[in-house]
Amino acid sequence: MNPSSYSEFMKPRDIRINDRFWGAFMERVRTKVIPYQWKALNDSVPGAEPSYCIRNFKLAAELTHPELDYGIPRDTGFGGLVFQDSDLAKWIEAAAYSLAWHPDRELEKTLDETIDIICSAQQDDGYLNTYYIINGLEKRFTNLKDNHELYCMGHYIEAAAAYYDAAGKRKLLDAMIRYVDCVDKHIGAEEGKLHGYPGHEIAEMALIRLYAVTKDEKHLRLAKYFIDQRGQSPLYFEEETRRNGNTFYWEDSYVQYQYYQAGKPVREQHTAEGHAVRAVYLYSGMADTARLTGDEELFAVCKALFANITQKQMYLTGAIGQSAYGEAFSYDYDLPNDTAYAETCAAIGLAFFARRMASIEPRAEYADVIERALFNGITGGMALDGESFFYVNPLEALPQASLKDRRMRHVKIQRQKWFGCACCPPNIARIIAFLGSYVHSANADTVYTHLYLGSEAAFHLAGGDLNIKMETRYPWDGEVDISFTAEGNAPFTYGLRIPSWCKSFSLKLNGAAAPYALRDGYALLNQEWRNGDRLSLSLDMPVNLVETNPCVRDNQGKLALIRGPLVYCLEEKDNGKELFKLHAGTPANFTVNYEQDLLEGLCTVSFSGKREKDWEDGALYRNRAEGRYEDQELIFIPYYAWANRGAGEMTVWINK
Amino acid sequence: MNPSSYSEFMKPRDIRINDRFWGAFMERVRTKVIPYQWKALNDSVPGAEPSYCIRNFKLAAELTHPELDYGIPRDTGFGGLVFQDSDLAKWIEAAAYSLAWHPDRELEKTLDETIDIICSAQQDDGYLNTYYIINGLEKRFTNLKDNHELYCMGHYIEAAAAYYDAAGKRKLLDAMIRYVDCVDKHIGAEEGKLHGYPGHEIAEMALIRLYAVTKDEKHLRLAKYFIDQRGQSPLYFEEETRRNGNTFYWEDSYVQYQYYQAGKPVREQHTAEGHAVRAVYLYSGMADTARLTGDEELFAVCKALFANITQKQMYLTGAIGQSAYGEAFSYDYDLPNDTAYAETCAAIGLAFFARRMASIEPRAEYADVIERALFNGITGGMALDGESFFYVNPLEALPQASLKDRRMRHVKIQRQKWFGCACCPPNIARIIAFLGSYVHSANADTVYTHLYLGSEAAFHLAGGDLNIKMETRYPWDGEVDISFTAEGNAPFTYGLRIPSWCKSFSLKLNGAAAPYALRDGYALLNQEWRNGDRLSLSLDMPVNLVETNPCVRDNQGKLALIRGPLVYCLEEKDNGKELFKLHAGTPANFTVNYEQDLLEGLCTVSFSGKREKDWEDGALYRNRAEGRYEDQELIFIPYYAWANRGAGEMTVWINK
Repeated sequence: MNPSSYSEFMKPRDIRINDRFWGAFMERVRTKVIPYQWKALNDSVPGAEPSYCIRNFKLAAELTHPELDYGIPRDTGFGGLVFQDSDLAKWIEAAAYSLAWHPDRELEKTLDETIDIICSAQQDDGYLNTYYIINGLEKRFTNLKDNHELYCMGHYIEAAAAYYDAAGKRKLLDAMIRYVDCVDKHIGAEEGKLHGYPGHEIAEMALIRLYAVTKDEKHLRLAKYFIDQRGQSPLYFEEETRRNGNTFYWEDSYVQYQYYQAGKPVREQHTAEGHAVRAVYLYSGMADTARLTGDEELFAVCKALFANITQKQMYLTGAIGQSAYGEAFSYDYDLPNDTAYAETCAAIGLAFFARRMASIEPRAEYADVIERALFNGITGGMALDGESFFYVNPLEALPQASLKDRRMRHVKIQRQKWFGCACCPPNIARIIAFLGSYVHSANADTVYTHLYLGSEAAFHLAGGDLNIKMETRYPWDGEVDISFTAEGNAPFTYGLRIPSWCKSFSLKLNGAAAPYALRDGYALLNQEWRNGDRLSLSLDMPVNLVETNPCVRDNQGKLALIRGPLVYCLEEKDNGKELFKLHAGTPANFTVNYEQDLLEGLCTVSFSGKREKDWEDGALYRNRAEGRYEDQELIFIPYYAWANRGAGEMTVWINK
Repeated sequence: MNPSSYSEFMKPRDIRINDRFWGAFMERVRTKVIPYQWKALNDSVPGAEPSYCIRNFKLAAELTHPELDYGIPRDTGFGGLVFQDSDLAKWIEAAAYSLAWHPDRELEKTLDETIDIICSAQQDDGYLNTYYIINGLEKRFTNLKDNHELYCMGHYIEAAAAYYDAAGKRKLLDAMIRYVDCVDKHIGAEEGKLHGYPGHEIAEMALIRLYAVTKDEKHLRLAKYFIDQRGQSPLYFEEETRRNGNTFYWEDSYVQYQYYQAGKPVREQHTAEGHAVRAVYLYSGMADTARLTGDEELFAVCKALFANITQKQMYLTGAIGQSAYGEAFSYDYDLPNDTAYAETCAAIGLAFFARRMASIEPRAEYADVIERALFNGITGGMALDGESFFYVNPLEALPQASLKDRRMRHVKIQRQKWFGCACCPPNIARIIAFLGSYVHSANADTVYTHLYLGSEAAFHLAGGDLNIKMETRYPWDGEVDISFTAEGNAPFTYGLRIPSWCKSFSLKLNGAAAPYALRDGYALLNQEWRNGDRLSLSLDMPVNLVETNPCVRDNQGKLALIRGPLVYCLEEKDNGKELFKLHAGTPANFTVNYEQDLLEGLCTVSFSGKREKDWEDGALYRNRAEGRYEDQELIFIPYYAWANRGAGEMTVWINK
């Protein structure tokens, strides 16, 4: 680890996104998702299961301050899942980012009023979790393993820091600092404290984020404690289960405490195991902690885990967590397409993890994964109208199987309006609203550009202030124009990520060949930059057919089509039923066609493939014979846009 | 339907099997399975979950006849599953067939004593089901849908008829006639009776079998009522559920009452649906009833169902019921190999159904299916030592997946000693012990030979008595010598099945070309047969690679190896791990090698295939490139013999 090569990602308010592709997603989040989720949190979506989320806070506030009257009957109990509080936190976080991008006084007022309610529920000692405030505080901290107290705390810390970053307001932040103080009094290494840690991780990275604001060592120390104590023997979760008569749901399972990544100390974990979202949230906190404490050993574990995920357990779309059982990783090279769990939140968490790794070392493999997840596994989770969502993101969809095959009971072929466990929609909202902070990172003398999208960003480098403006039609083509605005000459190194899918590119500075060096996937230009300098990056973006490592059983004999960062798929709508009868053959050429009126505007790719003909005799088996095929034009659309035209088959992988 | 072409299958005592291949299986059943199961039924297998089966009968007998004292404490309740009685019935049936093949006074004495116990539990009105006798007779007939009363009755009828056929003893048969009288008083079309039918079918075919002995029209009528009433509106199961407050387990499922094949009248059912064993037991009863009543419409339905199963829902091994969910059929062309349920009992039931169809019309497609199931899907269910069993018979086994992938939690990679629901082991026992009755069928002027195995059989034709002796090394080669013993000249048509896998054969009569006609898969010789006539049938038995109809998604790009009736597979033991990396290529030739010391003696098949090499860079995805392969000799063993050499991977289907 070399702290001089660390770089910091940007705060959303330092970058203004003005991109055709991503602007549309951000607008959907701002105008559709955030308002819809606000209604859902307030139980005012007609026909939908109530969230109870705001009501829980109001009830908790009334119980805590009897002078308050939100009109909740006192005998109303806690509603929803044990982690229901977190839905509101995620909404606040997304709304805060949205405000930074697009000021909205009405939304800001709503946020302030909501934060007032939340804070009214806070206990004198700082404790703040409605499940236990309503159900009995004497039970708090008795089931860290499954009851999500520290998970909810983590999300509220993220929300508080986001709102502080976006609007400079610190009421929620101060409340969270008090909550952390309370937790710190009860949980930690010292004698008399509970030697526990979160059952569902996120507090680790949230505490690091809090530390970035407060610089209070206590916050870093608690994050580090959660990480180092995890999985130590004697196992806290085992003791807690015994002491409090809790249930251990994984007793008869092969996964045991690795469901929680707590089966052994984290430094002994080198393969991603257990619940996928928990895992990548933990790894994100581990990477943060390694960076801040210079912990080489912990960083090496992070690298091993990142390599295990991306080289052995990641779908082409950047989706992870292949198994519905435990919403979990399963084992190396197990990547079923049709029964994939591939939870949207897990792809989001992988982007969190990759972003943290990228801030430690400037290797393009991290931002490659961010790009892969963002353009495919994450955006595929939301309908193009911003009104429905996938929790599970298969790479092959079969309507009849989803109905009749219980291996695929979790696989919906149409996005759903909302979920009882509504973790994915607000998670999509918060990462898309926060997208600006994934574009560049910088330290005193270097700026890296990781993602290409229309934007203007402001940097404060040792050599002076600087603005970088990008213009591009990415991902529809690979031309990126970058212009610099500086007051004087600004000496710094500028690094542009050359995506791993790009095998050929050109880079021009003010019209002439630019003198770059290529290192670890970045084209680096080290020079004095002058006001008005213009870089033109041209990334070749051919269509490619990709294949999977032969260790992956499910993709034997199959190809997928990619172009630039986008993974493509075939839909029944364009290609007829029984997509598994289609074969790519060896296409002579590909047609790329931008279609303005299709699915909000996108590039389709097509080529002449073939379809296996049905057997005339209707037999089920026969001696090997030459297959008979008919030509068929195969029409691919980007994976993120699938299932926006009614129910039907879809596949990413096609027979060779 | 043409009654003049009906043929009757033989009673086991009319045929003596003396076959190297099948004799070994029958010996295993006789010397291992039957004695082991007897212990299990008596709760005397150390370390195994008790069966409670015999104990239930003793307790029921004590409660019925307080003067009896089997030593069961009166406060002991019913033990085991609601259909526990059936295990004993299946054992009696298998033991009866075994007696016919291999007289055993000790076993016959045990049978007689056991039947005494069973009959002691019979109620004055003929009722005989220990679950209700012990738990309260007032509840009987209140849950035909799920409580298996009529299912158990069906199995006892089968057992009674088998023992009557084998030993001529009718105590159990008479008891069953009385039980049927009791059921007939309570269930039927008449006003005041319950308009119900079995939730788990078998009584239909059992009643037909009883009718064959008794010639009492009541028995045929009741079978026909069960069939015709099934699925009629208003739906009995729905009314019964409502009336008695029963649970309907499939309320939230797509399958609904079709789980029981009761969602609509059977004459409207043209695709096999629901629980696979129930389905083929029902279809067997339907075929029997169609035959005896000349019901063309019902026979047409049977033909449609047989075609649907064998052309759209049957594994290459003759296994059926692809889905673990409901142990059921799923939908056309859905044939997953790794998550296959493919219950042993379902393949057995398919053989029952096919045998009944074959007795109606002499088309070889029926006996083809019997042969396919017997040599593969059924025999694969039992270990070669006769001591352990598969309930589920996958066509691909992956030890790691069976451990970590919950889609395959039902797939064991090693056979189990016994099961809580012990339906399969005694079902294998009863079909193998009964094998003799699948070999030939005959009517007054025609004899058909359906299976080739060493045996001597006696026929009583219109033209005189006749013995047919077969000698063969089948399935290891296709040479079959058939000799006839007759008192005088016997004019009759002799039909030999030409298996569908056989594309070329020769047939000689006393050394000269035989004048046969080929019709519907049978080589027919119509002549006067003389004592000492000898037929030599030579079936070409080349190795073939077969492929699956392209509508089957899971077998795209795959081949399986067959030779004669045997489906082959690759095991890790012979071919290394990661069998999915193997490719058949286009083999120049196959080596067939009889190995006396391998797995009780069998023919292996091998050829030079290839294995895909691992990628040197360890990447998970790459642009399409030429694959790199190394040559590997691929060694196949017959599927029935898999998993007899420890745990490991197995696959029937291999990449092209």
